[in-house]
Amino acid sequence: MPPLPVSEKHMNEKKSIENPPLNPGERIDDLQRDGLRLIQDPSLFCFGMDAVLLSAFSAAQPGSRILDLCSGNGVIPILLSARTTDTKLTGMEIQEKSADLFRRSVEMNGLTDRIEVVCGDVKNAVSLFGPAGFDVLTCNPPYMIADHGLLNPESAKNVARHEILCTWRDIVEQAAKLLKPKGHFFIVHRPFRLPELFCELCEAGLEPKRMRMVYPFIDREPNMVLIEAVRGGNPRLKSEPPLIIYESPGVYTKEVRELYEC
Amino acid sequence: MPPLPVSEKHMNEKKSIENPPLNPGERIDDLQRDGLRLIQDPSLFCFGMDAVLLSAFSAAQPGSRILDLCSGNGVIPILLSARTTDTKLTGMEIQEKSADLFRRSVEMNGLTDRIEVVCGDVKNAVSLFGPAGFDVLTCNPPYMIADHGLLNPESAKNVARHEILCTWRDIVEQAAKLLKPKGHFFIVHRPFRLPELFCELCEAGLEPKRMRMVYPFIDREPNMVLIEAVRGGNPRLKSEPPLIIYESPGVYTKEVRELYEC
Repeated sequence: MPPLPVSEKHMNEKKSIENPPLNPGERIDDLQRDGLRLIQDPSLFCFGMDAVLLSAFSAAQPGSRILDLCSGNGVIPILLSARTTDTKLTGMEIQEKSADLFRRSVEMNGLTDRIEVVCGDVKNAVSLFGPAGFDVLTCNPPYMIADHGLLNPESAKNVARHEILCTWRDIVEQAAKLLKPKGHFFIVHRPFRLPELFCELCEAGLEPKRMRMVYPFIDREPNMVLIEAVRGGNPRLKSEPPLIIYESPGVYTKEVRELYEC
Repeated sequence: MPPLPVSEKHMNEKKSIENPPLNPGERIDDLQRDGLRLIQDPSLFCFGMDAVLLSAFSAAQPGSRILDLCSGNGVIPILLSARTTDTKLTGMEIQEKSADLFRRSVEMNGLTDRIEVVCGDVKNAVSLFGPAGFDVLTCNPPYMIADHGLLNPESAKNVARHEILCTWRDIVEQAAKLLKPKGHFFIVHRPFRLPELFCELCEAGLEPKRMRMVYPFIDREPNMVLIEAVRGGNPRLKSEPPLIIYESPGVYTKEVRELYEC
């Protein structure tokens, strides 16, 4: 999915600090929400529609403790800082370069009191944070299985896209322990892995409670699925209306436009 | 879902035999395909959009052996007789009254050489038919869990709608044994049970390979899901474009109209 066109119209100079110095190749993108901005490096993984939709699909009570796994450059915690009230956010990212961008974006947005950045391996998350400490987890994980003949498995983009450093099972095993009982886990993933997503979640005691299929056009196959699971929830999935991205090529539907306008 | 409006326009007198005598309360409905007709009794379970969509979603190679579980009045095998070539169809239904309607519809349509009707318990299907004998299975099972305070669990409609006489797990356990390796299992069910549907299928070695969500309107929650699983298939689900039933209240979409016109 292409990222939204960048514009300066929502810049909020009161909240954010001046543009920090950038490294070569880096850029600052407007997140079009509350004046939030994000430092990105196109040689690393840049955020897409996935992250924006997951942020909008997620929900947290005021005061919640929220952990984002596989944070990349931190777009989800930064967006969630605006979409939630009085929450304490932590983002965990294994790649030091991405975690560095994330840390600098948090500083640039004046969010160091709201968002903590941790550079570390999701497989060690329970050891690091302890069990049952979070009300909400979010994750935009690597979508692709690793064994597809990758030429360059150590590249930053491949680590973000493929299950090279962690698998879906790794994430679910940690999530089931990190969440408080009845805590909520919000995920964006690819529909082609839906059976496995559900099987691993159910096996770990994270019951899928809400799902939304995302279709690029009304007559096209879905290319994303949004899932909310609840630790120890009872079986019963609420399937939501289809989320359709484009009403015609290059023109977002009203729902998607509203995601960026409010 | 309401059944389609009945019309006589597709009646094919060459193929079908004359209207048989009916019992009180029974009626003959036109299936709007190849002149096929179905004897229904509104005091039992009458077919709906579910069965029509499952028949259209299913596929079988010429010469396949096909078994339909939870057949009710036999609408799915009867429709599949027209949608497949040189197939040998068997329908299994536990309720004698429904199986009797099914048997008489098969005779009325002149299909006794194509369709065998078996009145029996799906839980005994492997004992009855033997293992690995079918290329294709179809099932429009009871959707609802049984323990929802049913007032009249023995009524024919409740047996058809609720898991009183068999559960999803019972069906999957039998299906996994009835199918040949790489055989196909086509299901229509309710989205609220999707995690359980996938978990049981995967556990039994029936890999979900294709899925289509059915939305009554473009802005409404889905109320049906169509699934194709393959015995011993590799993990990778193909999710299809949304199937939308109505373009406005009472007006079917072009795709649904075409289901009945061809």
